[in-house]
Amino acid sequence: MMIQKSFHLFRSICKKWKKCHLVMPSCSFTKIGCFHHDLVKWSSARYFHHNQRWQAETPRSHSTSLHRFPFAMVTEHDIDFFEKLLPRQAITDPDVLESYNVDWLKSVKGSSKLLLRPQTTEEISHILRYCNERNLAVCPQGGNTGLVGGSVPVFDEIILSTSLMNKVLSFDTVSGVLVCQAGCVLEDLNSFVEENGFAMPLDLGAKGSCQIGGNVSTNAGGLRLLRYGSLRGTVLGLEVVLANGKVLNLLSSLRKDNTGYDVKQLFIGSEGTLGVITAVSILCPCKPKAVNVAFLGCSTIQQLLQTFRCCKGMLGEILSAFEFLDSACMQLLQNHLKLTNPITESPFYILIETSGSNANHDEEKLHNFLQHAMNTALITDGTMAKEDSKIKALWMLRERITEALLHDGYTYKYDISVPVEHIYQAVQDMRVQLRDQAKSVVGYGHLGDGNLHLNITSPFYDSALHSLIEPFIYEWTAKHHGSISAEHGLGLKKRNYIHYSKPAEAVYIMSHLKNMLDPKKILNPYKTLPDYIS
Amino acid sequence: MMIQKSFHLFRSICKKWKKCHLVMPSCSFTKIGCFHHDLVKWSSARYFHHNQRWQAETPRSHSTSLHRFPFAMVTEHDIDFFEKLLPRQAITDPDVLESYNVDWLKSVKGSSKLLLRPQTTEEISHILRYCNERNLAVCPQGGNTGLVGGSVPVFDEIILSTSLMNKVLSFDTVSGVLVCQAGCVLEDLNSFVEENGFAMPLDLGAKGSCQIGGNVSTNAGGLRLLRYGSLRGTVLGLEVVLANGKVLNLLSSLRKDNTGYDVKQLFIGSEGTLGVITAVSILCPCKPKAVNVAFLGCSTIQQLLQTFRCCKGMLGEILSAFEFLDSACMQLLQNHLKLTNPITESPFYILIETSGSNANHDEEKLHNFLQHAMNTALITDGTMAKEDSKIKALWMLRERITEALLHDGYTYKYDISVPVEHIYQAVQDMRVQLRDQAKSVVGYGHLGDGNLHLNITSPFYDSALHSLIEPFIYEWTAKHHGSISAEHGLGLKKRNYIHYSKPAEAVYIMSHLKNMLDPKKILNPYKTLPDYIS
Repeated sequence: MMIQKSFHLFRSICKKWKKCHLVMPSCSFTKIGCFHHDLVKWSSARYFHHNQRWQAETPRSHSTSLHRFPFAMVTEHDIDFFEKLLPRQAITDPDVLESYNVDWLKSVKGSSKLLLRPQTTEEISHILRYCNERNLAVCPQGGNTGLVGGSVPVFDEIILSTSLMNKVLSFDTVSGVLVCQAGCVLEDLNSFVEENGFAMPLDLGAKGSCQIGGNVSTNAGGLRLLRYGSLRGTVLGLEVVLANGKVLNLLSSLRKDNTGYDVKQLFIGSEGTLGVITAVSILCPCKPKAVNVAFLGCSTIQQLLQTFRCCKGMLGEILSAFEFLDSACMQLLQNHLKLTNPITESPFYILIETSGSNANHDEEKLHNFLQHAMNTALITDGTMAKEDSKIKALWMLRERITEALLHDGYTYKYDISVPVEHIYQAVQDMRVQLRDQAKSVVGYGHLGDGNLHLNITSPFYDSALHSLIEPFIYEWTAKHHGSISAEHGLGLKKRNYIHYSKPAEAVYIMSHLKNMLDPKKILNPYKTLPDYIS
Repeated sequence: MMIQKSFHLFRSICKKWKKCHLVMPSCSFTKIGCFHHDLVKWSSARYFHHNQRWQAETPRSHSTSLHRFPFAMVTEHDIDFFEKLLPRQAITDPDVLESYNVDWLKSVKGSSKLLLRPQTTEEISHILRYCNERNLAVCPQGGNTGLVGGSVPVFDEIILSTSLMNKVLSFDTVSGVLVCQAGCVLEDLNSFVEENGFAMPLDLGAKGSCQIGGNVSTNAGGLRLLRYGSLRGTVLGLEVVLANGKVLNLLSSLRKDNTGYDVKQLFIGSEGTLGVITAVSILCPCKPKAVNVAFLGCSTIQQLLQTFRCCKGMLGEILSAFEFLDSACMQLLQNHLKLTNPITESPFYILIETSGSNANHDEEKLHNFLQHAMNTALITDGTMAKEDSKIKALWMLRERITEALLHDGYTYKYDISVPVEHIYQAVQDMRVQLRDQAKSVVGYGHLGDGNLHLNITSPFYDSALHSLIEPFIYEWTAKHHGSISAEHGLGLKKRNYIHYSKPAEAVYIMSHLKNMLDPKKILNPYKTLPDYIS
């Protein structure tokens, strides 16, 4: 086993984003200035392309195929009301509004004329009660880091930003239960709980900008799901303002509570279409004392799966990530980013991370596992890192694939989850489907979660190729009982593909839930639910 | 640190039941014969009192205060229909029906004249469609091991048993995802997945009888919740038959799926009032290779909480249970069951269990923790066990408290959860409230989950004492933002106390969910929701 010496790698902005939906041909990047002072934190992370061209989708492309619902228009009288309710935080300045009207991918752009930035739940209650009575549509917005156009207005919806609702309300240093307002930034929360020996149970590329309310509203997955499970288990309570302005206080800090239906689950992952989350109670695990990373080579998909099984058994409670990439990804990293493959060439590469409470124990477990995997020929080569800089260098081989793809050409990006035994078959079947029509067909992702990032490139956007890919990929996913949106939600962009992953009966129930909680459909219209039931 | 030598202990039936709601004065036990061949498995576990007298509540006591809803009565024509649909499994024999009409506590008794035992989802679909059209009420029943009267009919509801739906449908040995019919017994499932190196993510005292469909319908907590989290995170998919007979297939095996609202959550913990769960997909963790148990003494509640915090930090990922009992519990164990306290007397006792993938590592971690806890005077004494028999002996000190209480007198039993820092305050405040009116006021439970079992005894049932306890305990729980039903659901018995733990707005939404999914309210009537909205 070779211990990795060093890599000359730097932390790319793409670390912030595991996947990038920018639609553009390959060439050099340039940095775009910040949009708004609230976004300074992540504006430096925004790289856009010279002579940016939106080939498949341009801002507002999604709204052009939609008809505006018959909501009322915002009047001067409405603005007077909101200015009195929220002094200096009812904003109509078009320059300020611009960044709130567009998603970070610049793929969806609304034309809202009013931004509201409340600081309290009561203010949100007043806002929604008023909007519901006036039949004014509202687009709730957290960090605006979503990838499916779920957090920006489509037409002139009033933008309801939670950015100023950023207070920690309580933290229990015995149980690790954190209660905070919805607008707290995930990274800030993680820093806060780390000071007390805990960690947030979720971690995302967008952690520097995304807000916990948005995380919960979109049921964000991310890098720690394998270890700490989904937000449906770790979120203990919510405070939500309903469409009619009523405040639903379910801000429990209890691990066990079986008193009636668990109503808060309705608001987890419903993308702000059923209510606006104003506060979150979440269970934080202890901060791990030791982290190790191994980067391994593997010959076949069967060995990849067997390595995962073996790894789960031998590393058990300390396994915190099991990621993979194929040789085509490695080729892109080498060709476009000049990254060095630290091990001998292999058809598949695995990145394993352990997080535990005792460094020696964890290292020994990992060594035992690697020894076993080598002895049984599950893996062909590998390298291991326990120092922070080397760990980061190995993670870059996984995290910079998105960036390498952008250099390769126009990228068709898919984020699916399937039962783990089929995880790479999507790539293989897509290669058969496309024959020599594509430049690259690559697969990587969170194998431990059954989450595949399937990416296809061509020199330029090619509608013939596109029509070979879709609906093939959605039909393939449906056939294998997969999800067409593993961790990003449906938002505006994917709402009409829901039937590939959910039966009609379930969508029917969803439409009833929407009618029940938001009968005027003022909350985040044109999102999540397909057009035919909106 | 003294290593425990031996205890002359035997595994009581009360191990099967963490809590017992039997209402009876103290004296010797006798074993009652089995009710029905389907219940043989756990009939031997049923101990009832000589000259059984139901002082506070008798079978049907809950129904006497209720009016039967205007459902249709079962006719000969209906029976003909069901006999054709389910040859030999549409049962009208009163002797067979008797055990299905009564809960295991013998506290609630219905008078159903018809038991249906389907084997397939399609059969359940036919049954419910027919019942919905005919306005016939249905009581879904799994293992009938609930403690709140949720699984037996109140009047003449048709009993819909899932006992014959006991097939494993698939098991993925890579991901650990098990898919099975709802009637599979939890212990059988655990044995099955253990053969493949996995474990069920939940464990209950009633595991020998309870069914996975019932576990999910009641969102069962149990002994592994501290480690593996709630069923809301580990249940990946459900198949449910709705009140109108429609089959809702959400039997996903995916860890990540963000396509629309998570409709399956509606059926987790709703006690069969919104639909009948017919199959479950659940994520199983790896079976631990090593288990250790420590039994410790502690002087103050502050030290108890500090020990928990320290334990979480030092044992981290291997901590699988953190239980506690007070000195009054130990006194009862010694007085009534002649159990030996293995350590010096203390105001509080802690039982810590670790489960991990490496025996040496786990033992070393536990020793390091114990050394630290002793050196910093968090604990006063302790004993540790790693052999199976000794581990069981230590667990008995926690698990036989219920049995000891039955010997102490009439027991008033409460199962609440509160933020962990208040967990023992309920006992202290209750002692102040009751002064010298009670014989014993004791507290024990799952400290790691904030789940307290508060028990009060008196020589005989005392209505004056009872009125001092209630509604005081419910009001106390509400004041401390707790749950009046931590892990048992509301069922028939607690449905009208829901407002102590849930706000009116939430109950209002619940009533709308019920109306939406079961407009004729044929599914498990008189359960979960309070009378005023039923």
